[in-house]
Amino acid sequence: MITEQEILESLKILIKKSSEFNNVLLGSGDDAAIIKTKEELVHSLDISVEGVHFLEELIPAEYIAYRSIAIALSDIAAMGAYPSFFSIGLTSNNEDINWYTSFNKGVERIIDEYQIPLVGGDITKERTNISVSVFGHLFNKNLKRSTAQVNDDIYITGQLGLAKKGLIEIKENGICNSQFIDAYLTPKAQFKKSREISPIANACIDISDGLLNDLGHICKQSGVGANIYIDDIPITTDIMDLTYGDDYELCFTISKDKSFKYAEGEYFKIGTIIDSNEINIFDKGKPIEMKTRGWDPFKK
Amino acid sequence: MITEQEILESLKILIKKSSEFNNVLLGSGDDAAIIKTKEELVHSLDISVEGVHFLEELIPAEYIAYRSIAIALSDIAAMGAYPSFFSIGLTSNNEDINWYTSFNKGVERIIDEYQIPLVGGDITKERTNISVSVFGHLFNKNLKRSTAQVNDDIYITGQLGLAKKGLIEIKENGICNSQFIDAYLTPKAQFKKSREISPIANACIDISDGLLNDLGHICKQSGVGANIYIDDIPITTDIMDLTYGDDYELCFTISKDKSFKYAEGEYFKIGTIIDSNEINIFDKGKPIEMKTRGWDPFKK
Repeated sequence: MITEQEILESLKILIKKSSEFNNVLLGSGDDAAIIKTKEELVHSLDISVEGVHFLEELIPAEYIAYRSIAIALSDIAAMGAYPSFFSIGLTSNNEDINWYTSFNKGVERIIDEYQIPLVGGDITKERTNISVSVFGHLFNKNLKRSTAQVNDDIYITGQLGLAKKGLIEIKENGICNSQFIDAYLTPKAQFKKSREISPIANACIDISDGLLNDLGHICKQSGVGANIYIDDIPITTDIMDLTYGDDYELCFTISKDKSFKYAEGEYFKIGTIIDSNEINIFDKGKPIEMKTRGWDPFKK
Repeated sequence: MITEQEILESLKILIKKSSEFNNVLLGSGDDAAIIKTKEELVHSLDISVEGVHFLEELIPAEYIAYRSIAIALSDIAAMGAYPSFFSIGLTSNNEDINWYTSFNKGVERIIDEYQIPLVGGDITKERTNISVSVFGHLFNKNLKRSTAQVNDDIYITGQLGLAKKGLIEIKENGICNSQFIDAYLTPKAQFKKSREISPIANACIDISDGLLNDLGHICKQSGVGANIYIDDIPITTDIMDLTYGDDYELCFTISKDKSFKYAEGEYFKIGTIIDSNEINIFDKGKPIEMKTRGWDPFKK
């Protein structure tokens, strides 16, 4: 049976690497970590659970780790902030040290890619459950969900449905070379775009539960509605891509009088905020009805 | 089947109460929280898991919540810090809303007792797994594990084995009126004492895995050993109380030349740090051998 000591041993490389960051005043190995931070701290906690968010039989531990952290970081990006550090609570009853080595590789990729230290965490034995605490600081002003304004343009940062298609491919063929599978296994938190839009956007959310659901949160919390146009939305498979998450693009709104300039294919203007309590979807000029998976923007 | 919406609804009272704290700039309900903090942030993440740290059939949800958070806060106290805010990742497949109402009551007790806001978290469905992220700021200097000095006096802040006896009572008779059961169900993070000792202590740890184990961490990380004297240690049942945690008292060391004054029964001087790599235990002047449950200080 694998011991906690062996697992901790396997983490040493991550702890050493993390201790070299300037903002780590006291890293892992004591009762708590001490981190150099700023007056306004952005924080989110995200759980990824075996059987709910991923299937261990399908996804190597490296990607379970990578996705769990990237998904949490996406919330920091959606707030108009950059990432500063993170911690992980790992529950797993895996008995193979290679599983942990693979998991750690995914964590290390995050440390390297986002240049943020792992400052601590906890390990317990039970069915796999990964709790990730992420931290950041505002680029500029915060980007809330509740501050969309009537007549704002609605944008998204990328194509919808890539990850969904990737997951279907994994289920059918296992992991192989595919841009769709990459999109599912290694989602990217949109910090570059978060920085670009943070001075001018009115509201923002990351698309974790599907565009309709997440735009629905903006609308509900801002007390507004939206018209969106299928023709302007880059989709992968079909219009059901509007109801799936997993791509972790941002959805945000900007006042029409702000001059928002961007390169083709970087952002997509998909609709307008309206004075209503509904999301109206237009396909080739005609209104259509769609169900979301979760909260239904059509139902009050 | 209980919906996420119903659970979130039950949390509203906690979110409202938390939003009234001065350090909460943006509370729950957005992609991330924004908290007013100080330059040096103390952070720890602790997981409590059904079947490992508690049994749901024995412990009402109120106490599962209370213990999970208090235990995490104890790490902040052990660092020489006071608590500032916390977040919770709750995984549970409980289908009874009363379970969540009871859980929330435990969370609310923590908010009230320690005067700290809940700033966010996540909810998923699976076997109960509670991940608590806690945050604080230093009273004074930090209290590390690795800085005990040869000739330091070793202290603990309270009696050992109370919680262990409480857990035995719960297993035998269920929850009833008992100081031991109280000690198990509602452990107290020792912030008052952390503040008192923070200017003068050399090293500190909270006793979560048993005195021998945790003093062992101080010794190992400081490159020292210890003599401890059973006669000076307040125990509840027998000397095996030195090997059980769950009381969450602090164990710390202070240089002999510091004049540490305290009221009888508030602190217990239990031994001395020595230039060695062993923990020697003396009972009525004679050395005895004991096994810890985890790391064995007698084995190299």
